Amino acid sequence: MLENIKIPKIPKISQTHLHGIKDLSIEDINNILELSKIFKEHNKEKDKKIPILKGRTIINLFFEPSTRTLISFEIAAKRLGADVINMNIEGSSLRKGESLFDTAQTLGAMNPDLVIIRHGVNDASKEIAKILECPVINAGEGVNEHPTQALLDAYTIMSHNRKLNDITVSICGDLEHSRVARSNYYLLNKMKSKVRFVFPDYFKPKDLDKYDVETFTNLEDGIKDADIVMMLRIQNERIKDLNLPSTNDYFRSFGLTYEKLKSAKPEALVLHPGPINRGVEIENELADDVNKSVITEQVENGVAVRMACLSILVK
Amino acid sequence: MLENIKIPKIPKISQTHLHGIKDLSIEDINNILELSKIFKEHNKEKDKKIPILKGRTIINLFFEPSTRTLISFEIAAKRLGADVINMNIEGSSLRKGESLFDTAQTLGAMNPDLVIIRHGVNDASKEIAKILECPVINAGEGVNEHPTQALLDAYTIMSHNRKLNDITVSICGDLEHSRVARSNYYLLNKMKSKVRFVFPDYFKPKDLDKYDVETFTNLEDGIKDADIVMMLRIQNERIKDLNLPSTNDYFRSFGLTYEKLKSAKPEALVLHPGPINRGVEIENELADDVNKSVITEQVENGVAVRMACLSILVK
Amino acid sequence: MLENIKIPKIPKISQTHLHGIKDLSIEDINNILELSKIFKEHNKEKDKKIPILKGRTIINLFFEPSTRTLISFEIAAKRLGADVINMNIEGSSLRKGESLFDTAQTLGAMNPDLVIIRHGVNDASKEIAKILECPVINAGEGVNEHPTQALLDAYTIMSHNRKLNDITVSICGDLEHSRVARSNYYLLNKMKSKVRFVFPDYFKPKDLDKYDVETFTNLEDGIKDADIVMMLRIQNERIKDLNLPSTNDYFRSFGLTYEKLKSAKPEALVLHPGPINRGVEIENELADDVNKSVITEQVENGVAVRMACLSILVK
Repeated sequence: MLENIKIPKIPKISQTHLHGIKDLSIEDINNILELSKIFKEHNKEKDKKIPILKGRTIINLFFEPSTRTLISFEIAAKRLGADVINMNIEGSSLRKGESLFDTAQTLGAMNPDLVIIRHGVNDASKEIAKILECPVINAGEGVNEHPTQALLDAYTIMSHNRKLNDITVSICGDLEHSRVARSNYYLLNKMKSKVRFVFPDYFKPKDLDKYDVETFTNLEDGIKDADIVMMLRIQNERIKDLNLPSTNDYFRSFGLTYEKLKSAKPEALVLHPGPINRGVEIENELADDVNKSVITEQVENGVAVRMACLSILVK
Repeated sequence: MLENIKIPKIPKISQTHLHGIKDLSIEDINNILELSKIFKEHNKEKDKKIPILKGRTIINLFFEPSTRTLISFEIAAKRLGADVINMNIEGSSLRKGESLFDTAQTLGAMNPDLVIIRHGVNDASKEIAKILECPVINAGEGVNEHPTQALLDAYTIMSHNRKLNDITVSICGDLEHSRVARSNYYLLNKMKSKVRFVFPDYFKPKDLDKYDVETFTNLEDGIKDADIVMMLRIQNERIKDLNLPSTNDYFRSFGLTYEKLKSAKPEALVLHPGPINRGVEIENELADDVNKSVITEQVENGVAVRMACLSILVK
Repeated sequence: MLENIKIPKIPKISQTHLHGIKDLSIEDINNILELSKIFKEHNKEKDKKIPILKGRTIINLFFEPSTRTLISFEIAAKRLGADVINMNIEGSSLRKGESLFDTAQTLGAMNPDLVIIRHGVNDASKEIAKILECPVINAGEGVNEHPTQALLDAYTIMSHNRKLNDITVSICGDLEHSRVARSNYYLLNKMKSKVRFVFPDYFKPKDLDKYDVETFTNLEDGIKDADIVMMLRIQNERIKDLNLPSTNDYFRSFGLTYEKLKSAKPEALVLHPGPINRGVEIENELADDVNKSVITEQVENGVAVRMACLSILVK
């Protein structure tokens, strides 16, 4: 029964773990994206099982809730034939440092082949990798990185025949708190895209001088002639907490609409990491317009990209 | 290793989705119940794996908590060899319409082969089917339908050598809020059973004129000479909310006891979709009396019937 | 593909269920521990699948939260090729007796091959075994037993070349509420170890006269010349509830430190069932000192021991 499944050749990359895009070489990125293509095709088959990780144990260790990312990794690992263990931990009730350390040590003792971690604190994935003997994937941590998101975004852009070294990408919204923005910046910058950060004053990143970007505080200016408009998710709670403008006001100034999108290139693609706050970051109809928005493609590509990362990293 | 497992022939039915019994033909129902027989026998084997859905991805999308139905579908899908993803969503914290739409779109992008949905709102399974490209099974929605429950009830009745076209079925209790009652009505009415609705005034269904039934407001009258006494679950909370009689008073007037059951045929079967409110809908000893009550058989048959529905609907 | 996996010979034991160590013979214990060795080696392989329970349905029925034990059983069952269903039930919201009975009956109807139960009430695993037709494993109940913990502790001790009939084991801390202590007592006593109970007055077990042990109320006295120092977990909440000394005071008198450990044999091993309350039961550095503490080995051995128990008990 296995004879009919064509197992692809799995490339090597320079890293043992996937902590961030920052650590990856251009070749690493290209290798991951090439392999993802094969899995994307495979995922359209009826029998989606491709037993590259048969008999392996993969642990999803999520200290922050994230149904979408968790399920994407869970499906990816299961399609590769691995046993998947989900651990949802409400970190808030624990003294963080301790809990992470002890939890990692406990899990590590169970001989996992790879651990996927999501955590509210920067560098949690590096901390846990010190304790574990297996590879670790950062599935989003603090305001640091979320590398598989940047990889799936790059995959999505390239699948629309854009060359990364020949495009302008405007990343727009809550730049201060976004790990998605940071991972995308590192990837796009490595690949020679022109990157712009577009944000209202109250979302100005404190570490802005670290990034080689043009900055804008007006959305239409920021996406002018852009090839890619990448909208970020904002936390509604955050808006309330910071005593910021109402979501209506935010939408008026920083929400993407058909009208404002005219400022970008006519064939510009709209990306969003999801889940969308409809009517806050993006106009309803535009979010669902498959001629402009590639948001559901991002989700589909996410499974393929994660299958590639898992296949490459598990020893 | 597969050679020893006899894969049954999977029949076709007229529907792409299983939204409700209403849509099924008599032949569809018979086809599902016939196939269920094979799975019921198979489930008594040591190796319960029958890889009809090997490599497929099945998603359990539950917006209402329901351990029993969720686990029944989970076991059914796993025994068929599918990868199962459970999503328990507390719908209450979300703006319903949006959440259902966006969640469906996200899940759909992950190439599932079938989605099972439970939701508090009528027609949620039809709404989600518009967005998804895969088949959808309604696992209970609003006060509309719960089709697999009616199928497993029919299976249970027939397995006791009752002919559906030759029996009187009394459905008793909270008729107003019961999707189980509605699905059972559609099935039994199609199959030419005589159906009675038996309810206290405060549980009179608002849409009563849609149903071709005899109605009763006294339990003993309602089950007189019945072949099947189907008790419904009531929500204790509901009784409190509506300022209804106490559960004690409810039990006195509408709880099924050995004494009241004398009014039905001597060999009458007692069904209940579970979980039972003991001492409210049904007398303790009677619920556990395997000569009268077939409640645990219903649970066992549920797994087989769901295996049949999954096998038939996945393309 | 299966030809390469060497399926070990599975021994028989005298019991159908694993309710407690109390019921096991010395031969039973030795058989379980022998088989565990094979699984421990197997768990270091890349492909950890060993399809002894292929096609079987194992249910984890946890009425008390316990990530660590739950995951250990989940991994064990999955590595043996079983389908695993996790049921986390917050028992508190249910009338306990009823819920256990009805839940068991429902699960039993789904033809599981084995049910693992964790419950706050003594003898819950025996109660549920009366209802189910399949074997039951007690994964910790009330203040009664937690047999797999004692088995993995014994495995850990023996893997360090200690002979059980030739050692002194000091079990220290909250003896009153500890099921771990009771299971360990039964095992070690059967195997002719010398067992000591070491506890502050307020944790004196009410059933102390049932145990053939030396007792101590001072930690250093209690571990004097011991081969094994087994620290118990205490519930911080419990300390608050009982109006006991602060955790600081507890640590000063009953927390294990390098200093106090000098009283034991120089090569004494430190065990703890986890999760540790760092700085309460045990000094931070000592807990992590792999030359003294075998806490992470206990976790690793736990998976192997549970694989052995599952393999032996499933019919």
